[in-house]
Amino acid sequence: MRRNVALEEAQDLLLSLADPVGECQLALFDAVGRVLSRDIEAPFNLPPFDKSPLDGYAVRAQDIAQASADNPVVLEVVEEVAAGHTARRKVTTKTAIKVMTGTAIPAGADAVIKFEDVRRAGNICKFFHPVKAGGNIVPAGEDVRKGEVIAARGTTVSPALVGLIAALGYAEVPVFDKVKIAVISTGDELVDSSQKLQPGKIYNSNLPSLVAACLKLGTQITALGNVPDELDAIANIISLGLADADIVITTGGVSVGDYDVVPDALARLGADVIYRGVNMKPGSPAVAAEANGKFVICLSGNPAAALITFELIAVPLIKKKMGLNSYLPARLGAKLGDDFAKASPQRRFLRGRFQVAEGVNRVMLTGEQGNGVLKSLVNCNAYVDVPAGSGRMVAGQDVSVLIVGDVFGR
Amino acid sequence: MRRNVALEEAQDLLLSLADPVGECQLALFDAVGRVLSRDIEAPFNLPPFDKSPLDGYAVRAQDIAQASADNPVVLEVVEEVAAGHTARRKVTTKTAIKVMTGTAIPAGADAVIKFEDVRRAGNICKFFHPVKAGGNIVPAGEDVRKGEVIAARGTTVSPALVGLIAALGYAEVPVFDKVKIAVISTGDELVDSSQKLQPGKIYNSNLPSLVAACLKLGTQITALGNVPDELDAIANIISLGLADADIVITTGGVSVGDYDVVPDALARLGADVIYRGVNMKPGSPAVAAEANGKFVICLSGNPAAALITFELIAVPLIKKKMGLNSYLPARLGAKLGDDFAKASPQRRFLRGRFQVAEGVNRVMLTGEQGNGVLKSLVNCNAYVDVPAGSGRMVAGQDVSVLIVGDVFGR
Repeated sequence: MRRNVALEEAQDLLLSLADPVGECQLALFDAVGRVLSRDIEAPFNLPPFDKSPLDGYAVRAQDIAQASADNPVVLEVVEEVAAGHTARRKVTTKTAIKVMTGTAIPAGADAVIKFEDVRRAGNICKFFHPVKAGGNIVPAGEDVRKGEVIAARGTTVSPALVGLIAALGYAEVPVFDKVKIAVISTGDELVDSSQKLQPGKIYNSNLPSLVAACLKLGTQITALGNVPDELDAIANIISLGLADADIVITTGGVSVGDYDVVPDALARLGADVIYRGVNMKPGSPAVAAEANGKFVICLSGNPAAALITFELIAVPLIKKKMGLNSYLPARLGAKLGDDFAKASPQRRFLRGRFQVAEGVNRVMLTGEQGNGVLKSLVNCNAYVDVPAGSGRMVAGQDVSVLIVGDVFGR
Repeated sequence: MRRNVALEEAQDLLLSLADPVGECQLALFDAVGRVLSRDIEAPFNLPPFDKSPLDGYAVRAQDIAQASADNPVVLEVVEEVAAGHTARRKVTTKTAIKVMTGTAIPAGADAVIKFEDVRRAGNICKFFHPVKAGGNIVPAGEDVRKGEVIAARGTTVSPALVGLIAALGYAEVPVFDKVKIAVISTGDELVDSSQKLQPGKIYNSNLPSLVAACLKLGTQITALGNVPDELDAIANIISLGLADADIVITTGGVSVGDYDVVPDALARLGADVIYRGVNMKPGSPAVAAEANGKFVICLSGNPAAALITFELIAVPLIKKKMGLNSYLPARLGAKLGDDFAKASPQRRFLRGRFQVAEGVNRVMLTGEQGNGVLKSLVNCNAYVDVPAGSGRMVAGQDVSVLIVGDVFGR
């Protein structure tokens, strides 16, 4: 067990121990937002055949090589083909076949002339300009070549990818299973919203916010509820969580006070503690343990600290278990938009709103930064990473931010 | 009806006709990702009482005003209070009460001294430095004031907001209903993945990709399937869609060819056509109509054109119906990362990948830009907005982009 590790060490320790969960086959619509567990190869060319990109006439380019506005070339239209149908005849000397957008190019033709560029009377069609061989033909395989990997393992199934996979005739795709997470909050002071608030009590926000965060990630969540600050109760419920979940997340009981019994509960369960304490504010009294290849991620009971350490420590682990190829939040430079008066003897993460503009990126602080203050997390999409030993910070200074939410309103 | 409108005119026409759908009450967990239909007010202060932010001793500041390392002040500890419990006694002259993080400050006390800063033996505690009145006390209402609007109508319910709403004792929240969307593809050439691909046919990608896009937005989707290019069939299925959905989306059949019968189907249904044709490439043959306060959004049958016009025209409409306060994609300046050789007589949207860096934002083109090419949409997160009349474009030139996807891997 390591004590007071750096955030990056906590992340690395967990990631090095984690493998993606199992995989399954899902119908395409059910796979939206899931993560591919295998590379997807194209079983045939896209388009599967040479096709026309427009409504027009399929011709032999050499037949109209001499066409001009003054000396149009006349061809006989021998057939009309709708999209989804194929020509029964070939294009031979001095003939043309009418094709629609998406129609397979009839045999014998090597170019298409746009509908609007010809004049037609009955079966006779006048062409007023030449065309290169291959003109207005989309060759088979232009979009995707047979055998090409169109999406790699670890890719999230997006709408465009669903379209591409469907175009290749797949009805199902291999994706990783949902990661199973159990969430537990601890604390005698917490009550749920069905109860009246007695003096000294507060409503439980950790369980709902972490369940919501896990749901947003697309995991399968079990909310195991709140337990009092008692060793037996906490050990039992963590054990219950480990029976089914890949990851158990707890809040509270990890500090060094008289009622902080979560570490004792982990010891009783025989879990290997990976680290105890992370060198950051908020959220420093964080603990992680492993038991039989499963993880127990124990977060501070302060609501903001819990969500911030969830984002920085648990989310990368969850994303690796989900099978994603990229786990860590993006890091960028920015100008700080506000003053922050407090010194930071310890490394500190400030809640902010990151904005991209031309030339200069800016991060505005979102309000009170106390360990318990949730309000400043509501509009937060980035954490300002303030190095240990920093003094007062002033608007306009350069800072480093981690992107943890939506920047462009999407 | 207007013809060949600008994209912004198409957006404005639709948005001006659209109101959000109805509302419902949902349990907090079910509301994650949904949109608030009313402002949420705090029914009480957060924290509800003056609380201690740390484990320590609640005292009267005046009692230890003279304390120093050399001359510690001695107080008697008269009670110990755990979090979630309240003191039965008051702090009176020369006494202290031990409190835990989150404990309500006992009556009589006006400051808290950190556990680590005192020396205790039995019930006797030595204090080595003074404290200001109010020191280490989080006052009631510091996070949220009673009556304050903590989240406005139109806000998406995020994990942090779930926490804040739960902290205020709400078990349910008012959210907008799911927008109901029916998706229809048209085209004799399209077959679904259960069928073998016959010559001239292609697999239907429009229906799956648009269903996926609607699912990703969080709408309630009905995939009505593919219909051939026949007036009766198309009119009937649009009518079926309108019976239940708020918005019917169709692909194909909107150009000016012999088989483009969607506009005739709209006329037969008595729908008011809002516009026909949008001045953009890809996707120009787009049509929109209104029927009894519902919308029919008809997109090109070319797979990439369909998805791009869905994003730029249908998504803003859907977002307004969902109750969101912001509908349109963010617009930013960027440096073009690649050459694009073709001239653009018509306004053109190029698929690209937008990257934020310090000082300069860049957009790389994602590949072939043909109307049918889905592959370049898979990694696309932005469209380069190329004005009509533009010539060849070169790497390094300034362009304007619309953000339509994930930029920071979130």
